[in-house]
Amino acid sequence: MPGLDEFSLIARLFAPLAARHPGALGLTDDAALIAGPAGRQWAVTADAMVEGVHFLPDDPPELIARKLVRVNLSDLAAMGAKPFAVLLASCFPLGVADEWLERFAAGLKSDCEEFSIALIGGDTVATPGPLTLALTAIGDVPAESALLRSNARSGDDIWVSGSIGDAAFGLLVGQGKAASLDPADAQWLLGRYRLPLPRTALGPALLGLAHAAMDISDGLVGDLGHICETSGVGALVDAAKVPLSAAVRAALAAGLGGIERVLAGGDDYELLFTAAPDAAQSVAALGRALGLRLTAIGRIIEGQGVRVTGADGRTLSLAGGGYRHFGG
Amino acid sequence: MPGLDEFSLIARLFAPLAARHPGALGLTDDAALIAGPAGRQWAVTADAMVEGVHFLPDDPPELIARKLVRVNLSDLAAMGAKPFAVLLASCFPLGVADEWLERFAAGLKSDCEEFSIALIGGDTVATPGPLTLALTAIGDVPAESALLRSNARSGDDIWVSGSIGDAAFGLLVGQGKAASLDPADAQWLLGRYRLPLPRTALGPALLGLAHAAMDISDGLVGDLGHICETSGVGALVDAAKVPLSAAVRAALAAGLGGIERVLAGGDDYELLFTAAPDAAQSVAALGRALGLRLTAIGRIIEGQGVRVTGADGRTLSLAGGGYRHFGG
Repeated sequence: MPGLDEFSLIARLFAPLAARHPGALGLTDDAALIAGPAGRQWAVTADAMVEGVHFLPDDPPELIARKLVRVNLSDLAAMGAKPFAVLLASCFPLGVADEWLERFAAGLKSDCEEFSIALIGGDTVATPGPLTLALTAIGDVPAESALLRSNARSGDDIWVSGSIGDAAFGLLVGQGKAASLDPADAQWLLGRYRLPLPRTALGPALLGLAHAAMDISDGLVGDLGHICETSGVGALVDAAKVPLSAAVRAALAAGLGGIERVLAGGDDYELLFTAAPDAAQSVAALGRALGLRLTAIGRIIEGQGVRVTGADGRTLSLAGGGYRHFGG
Repeated sequence: MPGLDEFSLIARLFAPLAARHPGALGLTDDAALIAGPAGRQWAVTADAMVEGVHFLPDDPPELIARKLVRVNLSDLAAMGAKPFAVLLASCFPLGVADEWLERFAAGLKSDCEEFSIALIGGDTVATPGPLTLALTAIGDVPAESALLRSNARSGDDIWVSGSIGDAAFGLLVGQGKAASLDPADAQWLLGRYRLPLPRTALGPALLGLAHAAMDISDGLVGDLGHICETSGVGALVDAAKVPLSAAVRAALAAGLGGIERVLAGGDDYELLFTAAPDAAQSVAALGRALGLRLTAIGRIIEGQGVRVTGADGRTLSLAGGGYRHFGG
C-alpha cells in the first residue's frame, strides 16, 4: 500500500509541476492562491475522502457529506479565507440507494446553508469501488494577506483552538474500541470525529494577527512539524498546556490511550497558529469574542523539529510524528 | 448500480444547492464562472475518472494522467476559457508501484508543459478500491463572454470540430473487439480514445462567433440534446454531414458498428457549437487558420429534441440518445 515512502515520492514528483504558478506555494500549504477581483485573492483547496479510510462505511450519509465540506472549509480557514463555493466530484458505488443519496444531499444542503456557500459544479460518476468523494472549495481572502505555513518566526507563541485529541479518541469509539467510556463522553467524541467544526470565523479574524497557520488534520505534532519545515524553524511544546476536553481526560483516565494519542492523532480540524508574543493579549481577546478556547502551548525557536516536553520536564518520544490516514 | 434514474435524482437533489451562486449556471454547463481580476472571469470545472469505468486498468499511466487533464481542459475550451491551473485529488490503490507513480507524474508533467498550466494543489490519499482521480481545472475568460450551452438560437448552424465517433471505436479496440481492423487504423482509434485532444485554441477563438458550445463527452446526439434542453430549442442533424475519420469509415465498412455508434458514442472531446448562418464564413476561416476541420452538420430549430436524418432522408432512431459511462 502507499506508505510514507510513496507519499514522499509523490510530493517529490508533483512539486516541480507547481513551479509555474507562485500561488501554488510549492504545494506545501493548505490551499493555493489565485487572483481575485481588485484587492482580493481566491484560496482554492481540494480534498478527497474514501469510504473505509476517511470515514466508516456505516457513518450516516448526512455526516459524510458535511465532513467532506468541513475538512475543506477548514483548509480555507487555515489560510484566513472565507468560503463561498464548492465543486463536488462524487464516485458513488454500484447499488447506492435512493434514500442514501437523498440523505447525502440533505447533509450537503445543510452545510451549504450553514456556511453560506454554493455548490457551483462538479461531476457524478459510478464506481465499482468504495464511495469516493473529492471536494474543491474556494474562499475569499484580502490580497497578499493569506496566512501561510511558512511564516512562523523564532520567538512566536504557538496557539491552538478548541481541544486536541477528541477525534483520535472518537475514532476509537467508532471502531467499537471504547466500550469502557461513559456513553455521553463516547458520543461526544464520536461526534468530534464525524463532524469537525471548521474554524471559519477564527481564520479570517487571525489575518494581521497570526504569523503562520494551518489546520490540524494529521495530528498536532506532525502538523506543527510541517510549519517548522516550511518556515525553517523549530518548536517546543509543553504537553501539559495542550488543551484537553473533559471526554479526552476521561478516556486517558480509562486507559484508552496515552498522551501520544492526543499529540499525534488526526482529524481534529482545529487551527494551529503562531503569533508574536506581543499579540498574546489580542489573541486572547479574540478567543473571548468568538467564544472559542485559544491556548498557547509552546514556542517557536531557531533550529528544526518539534520537541514536546512532558509534565515531568522530560522530552516525550513520539514515534512517527503525525498520524497518517493510510496507517503504515 | 447508479443508472439513469439515480443520476437524474442526483441532478435534482444537487441543483438547488447551486441557486446561491449565478456562476454555477444551474449545474448544467461545462464549467462554473467566478469573478476574476478586472474584466475577466475564471471558469472552474471538476471531473472524476475511475479505473475500469473511464479508462482501462492496463492503460499506460502517462496516458491516464494526460486524459484526466485533457477532459477537464476540454470543458474549459467549451466555455471559451484558456486554462492556467489544475488541482489533483488522487486516490491511489494499495500496492501502487513506484514506477507506475513516476510514469503517471511524467504524463502530468508533459501535459502541464504542453498546455502551459500549473498544478497548484490537491490531495493524495490511499484507496482500497480502484484508482480514482478527480481534477479541478481553472481557466481564464473575458468577463460576460463565456460560451454557454443555453445560448443556441433557432436558425443557428450546428458545427463540430474534428471527426466524430473515433473514441467509441477506439474503446472497442481497447476491449479487444476490433481484431478485424487494419492495425494502423486500430492504433489510431485507440489513441483517440486514450488521449483526447482538447480544443484549447478553438474554444477561446469562438468567443463572439459562436452562440452555444459544449464538448462532446457523452455522444454527439446526447450532448446536442443538452444544448437543446438548456436553450429551449430543437435540432436537426444530417447524418451524412457528420465528419468521419478514414479509420471510422473502415470500421463501419468492417461491420464493427453502425452509424449509431458514431452518433451516440462518447469520449470524442470535440467541440459542438452553434453559430448564426451569417458567421459561417468566419467559422470556416477560423478552421483554416487553426488547421482544424470544422463541419456544419445541421440546424437549430424551434421546438425540442434532436432529430437525425439518414442518407435516405428518413429519421434515424437512436435508442437512449447519449452514451453513458456507467452503462444502462
